[in-house]
Amino acid sequence: MKEYILLIDTTDAKGLVYNVSKILYANNLNIEQNSEFVDEETKKFFMRSVISGNVNKDLLLKELKEVLPKDSTIKLNTNQKKDIVILATKESHVLGDLLIRYFDGELNANIKAVIANHDYLKDLVEKFGIPFHCISAENMSREEHEDLVITQISEYNPELIVLAKYMRILTSKFVDAFPKKVLNIHHSFLPAFIGANPYKQAYQRGVKIIGATAHYVTDDLDEGPIVAQDVVRVDHTYSWQDMRRAGRNVEKVVLSNALQLLLDDKVFVYGNKTVVL
Amino acid sequence: MKEYILLIDTTDAKGLVYNVSKILYANNLNIEQNSEFVDEETKKFFMRSVISGNVNKDLLLKELKEVLPKDSTIKLNTNQKKDIVILATKESHVLGDLLIRYFDGELNANIKAVIANHDYLKDLVEKFGIPFHCISAENMSREEHEDLVITQISEYNPELIVLAKYMRILTSKFVDAFPKKVLNIHHSFLPAFIGANPYKQAYQRGVKIIGATAHYVTDDLDEGPIVAQDVVRVDHTYSWQDMRRAGRNVEKVVLSNALQLLLDDKVFVYGNKTVVL
Amino acid sequence: MKEYILLIDTTDAKGLVYNVSKILYANNLNIEQNSEFVDEETKKFFMRSVISGNVNKDLLLKELKEVLPKDSTIKLNTNQKKDIVILATKESHVLGDLLIRYFDGELNANIKAVIANHDYLKDLVEKFGIPFHCISAENMSREEHEDLVITQISEYNPELIVLAKYMRILTSKFVDAFPKKVLNIHHSFLPAFIGANPYKQAYQRGVKIIGATAHYVTDDLDEGPIVAQDVVRVDHTYSWQDMRRAGRNVEKVVLSNALQLLLDDKVFVYGNKTVVL
Amino acid sequence: MKEYILLIDTTDAKGLVYNVSKILYANNLNIEQNSEFVDEETKKFFMRSVISGNVNKDLLLKELKEVLPKDSTIKLNTNQKKDIVILATKESHVLGDLLIRYFDGELNANIKAVIANHDYLKDLVEKFGIPFHCISAENMSREEHEDLVITQISEYNPELIVLAKYMRILTSKFVDAFPKKVLNIHHSFLPAFIGANPYKQAYQRGVKIIGATAHYVTDDLDEGPIVAQDVVRVDHTYSWQDMRRAGRNVEKVVLSNALQLLLDDKVFVYGNKTVVL
Repeated sequence: MKEYILLIDTTDAKGLVYNVSKILYANNLNIEQNSEFVDEETKKFFMRSVISGNVNKDLLLKELKEVLPKDSTIKLNTNQKKDIVILATKESHVLGDLLIRYFDGELNANIKAVIANHDYLKDLVEKFGIPFHCISAENMSREEHEDLVITQISEYNPELIVLAKYMRILTSKFVDAFPKKVLNIHHSFLPAFIGANPYKQAYQRGVKIIGATAHYVTDDLDEGPIVAQDVVRVDHTYSWQDMRRAGRNVEKVVLSNALQLLLDDKVFVYGNKTVVL
Repeated sequence: MKEYILLIDTTDAKGLVYNVSKILYANNLNIEQNSEFVDEETKKFFMRSVISGNVNKDLLLKELKEVLPKDSTIKLNTNQKKDIVILATKESHVLGDLLIRYFDGELNANIKAVIANHDYLKDLVEKFGIPFHCISAENMSREEHEDLVITQISEYNPELIVLAKYMRILTSKFVDAFPKKVLNIHHSFLPAFIGANPYKQAYQRGVKIIGATAHYVTDDLDEGPIVAQDVVRVDHTYSWQDMRRAGRNVEKVVLSNALQLLLDDKVFVYGNKTVVL
Repeated sequence: MKEYILLIDTTDAKGLVYNVSKILYANNLNIEQNSEFVDEETKKFFMRSVISGNVNKDLLLKELKEVLPKDSTIKLNTNQKKDIVILATKESHVLGDLLIRYFDGELNANIKAVIANHDYLKDLVEKFGIPFHCISAENMSREEHEDLVITQISEYNPELIVLAKYMRILTSKFVDAFPKKVLNIHHSFLPAFIGANPYKQAYQRGVKIIGATAHYVTDDLDEGPIVAQDVVRVDHTYSWQDMRRAGRNVEKVVLSNALQLLLDDKVFVYGNKTVVL
Repeated sequence: MKEYILLIDTTDAKGLVYNVSKILYANNLNIEQNSEFVDEETKKFFMRSVISGNVNKDLLLKELKEVLPKDSTIKLNTNQKKDIVILATKESHVLGDLLIRYFDGELNANIKAVIANHDYLKDLVEKFGIPFHCISAENMSREEHEDLVITQISEYNPELIVLAKYMRILTSKFVDAFPKKVLNIHHSFLPAFIGANPYKQAYQRGVKIIGATAHYVTDDLDEGPIVAQDVVRVDHTYSWQDMRRAGRNVEKVVLSNALQLLLDDKVFVYGNKTVVL
């Protein structure tokens, strides 16, 4: 039987669970998994249900809409692979991890294309039969380059854009073109070491643990909602290059884990935070 | 407004969430938090809801009983401190951690008494104004000693019994006397190194990580349902005494965290597993 | 046989290991443990050796001085318990952890006294037979209060001062009075969330991991050399109070571990970093 | 200037550091890094030094041999890439991680070939220009198949053999053919869950943490010296397939980290343990 994922994001009110479960029950649908979260501070209500049965999608959405607050966001997704586009620069470890997962069918996504501002990764990407577009940023303004990238991405109409160590700062035009659709991996345990060369900063500060952060991209650089983080221990024997090498393992695992959460429709964004159900 | 914790443990069936939420809604109760879990393998359904409002406890339980499967376990707890009794032997780190939490009001429990088979910890316990009973096991059989301990525990009628490094093997008589009420801390990352001297075993095996496990006590030694685990890194420079010292930090934190989950009514036991909602 | 810890901190040069080991060998001393580290960036050399045998301390230091660079710091410590003084305010978890370790002889230190700016912890400290001094900061300037604290500390002439959640900002006068002798626990994963209320900051930023940092106190608030750090996972269900509660476990373990490193003479400070041998 | 790695494995005796450092000093060599470890229990001494200067390899080894105990093992390696051969079966995540590191030059090794008992990974391996040999185990005895594999490996004369999820049990003939040269990744936190299907075992036991172990292969299945381990948290919502998916991240990172330690000549094996300097 086909499974659907029901996602509700709304203002908290009495009877929400009752009203939703009543409709599911009346439609003879099974609840396979169900999670809710109420943010007490903002009075926001989030619900993610995996349901099975004969779903009449339009009717179900209509009925839910009638009982839920006006400001609700209601989604009913199938468990199909999502189309994604990956942006990269020169480093291969995060991209490579996604390619290997894609190769063995572990990634619940279709990688439609990889776009990079250098051609260094062309060979690697094409080994996997995936279109590679090099859009060099040389001899043009940031805006001009970004327009080319936006145009190229848009051709693939992806549901998600993954920045796999894409070392370019994005303008708000880019962010607005793909709202809540851009996932980035930052090579530090944010908010420590925002900005450039976080491993050098970490080395100079003499920290004993370094990390990586996967977050949605927003207009505020390195300030977007955090999806996943992880860390690894270092010590005084690590040069900043050693830290970078150790950090790469964390970067790729954190990005892949965060991407999987997004592909499984498990992440809600509100304000500068995420709820992972 | 008073908060209640509703705990349901039953066989999965269509409409469970609907039926429960309908009754809560009809009784004009708010759902402050709600978590469910369905174990697909055994078709078991678990639900934990924090509810607020004017609760008529008997009526609510009666109404819930009518709509839930016959084999359901339904509990409605208030958020009151639970009475506990602690058993110990000579080591102070796990017991001491509980005493400090108790002192500053962080532990959501009343420590009614500490019972030990040596008097080494008497001074420490009495510093905190808690009754201490030394029941020596010398010159008597295991069964005779255990009977004395059971009798002493029973005087306090505790909701939970915490083995804070109590280095005595329990018989099934003890386990049956306090079903699903005894929490133990085992000084290894179970199921590695079951049995005696786990740190020596870990040292001899040359592991790079050691850990500790908080679990319910059952008739099968070291095989009870696991509530919480954690680990710490070691290396070749660690003697087994060093491992024991490093492990102590893990033991006390794991036991305290597990106990808090039990005190917060967050743990369901089924078979040899736990569901933590 | 008595053990000594030899600590050398100097400029790197060819033959350092040879020259030191030659003298130890000529004095018929055993090297039980030996660690060196050369910081390539600053050309600093650090050496920690545990030696045994019949040590003539003055002669050995004299001989070592003759072969080592002029700017060398050479120490020869016995493995005796160090005298420490603890400063606290109201929170008991870090202090309590130290008291329990002290009680069972695990802490390689004599706690000479606890000084606090409130009397809330008096009962707890005196349970363990340790002098407690309440020096209130009310109705006086920061400098006046600090002078009283410095005077009280100095009476005990401690080798180390431990800030166990002492919630007062220290002036450079205090720092200068006890150079490289003050260890603090900061309730965040520094350098993230410096300043006040780090758990509130972490909550607002929506991080998925929180931590704690033990560091030497210097004139730059929250910028002193880091000795130890650790972290714990949190998620969207944590209020900032929940984060604080989870963080407390990390705080006390990190501070105790860092203190043990200092008591074992394993930490060298240089610039704003530490070398842990 | 060229760097060498000096590795000494011997019985502990007075003056070892002095005697070695004297020879290095007399030969006008710099000690860039130096680590020693004495195992108190077995009185074994291990030393790893990174040295630079004009090394006369034969002369240096001869001089060292003269001052060290008769049973010493002395090696003087250059920092060159080691030749390795990888064995695999069908799973791509561990192998893929090595291939991506190899592609971007991060792996300090030449992958001479990949040998598998199925042809499923042929395409992936050949994308990277590496010879792939499928040696099917069908219609032959374990010994016959292993002979073919040993012959194929021997053609490449590798310094290390990496089992990247090679799902075949090896006989002692194989182990003896490549002593202290075979590194395996086991998909559990050894010694928990030795044997088949560790993730199913972990699921059934209800553990809250799973892990992976990289170890040298010896005659005792899953009992070889452990090089590296790591873990990841799981909970009651994980099916055993979810655990396997989560575990894959750990497997590949642990194996890659362990391999790097071996490639960097940082691991000594003695008995069933390792010393990592």
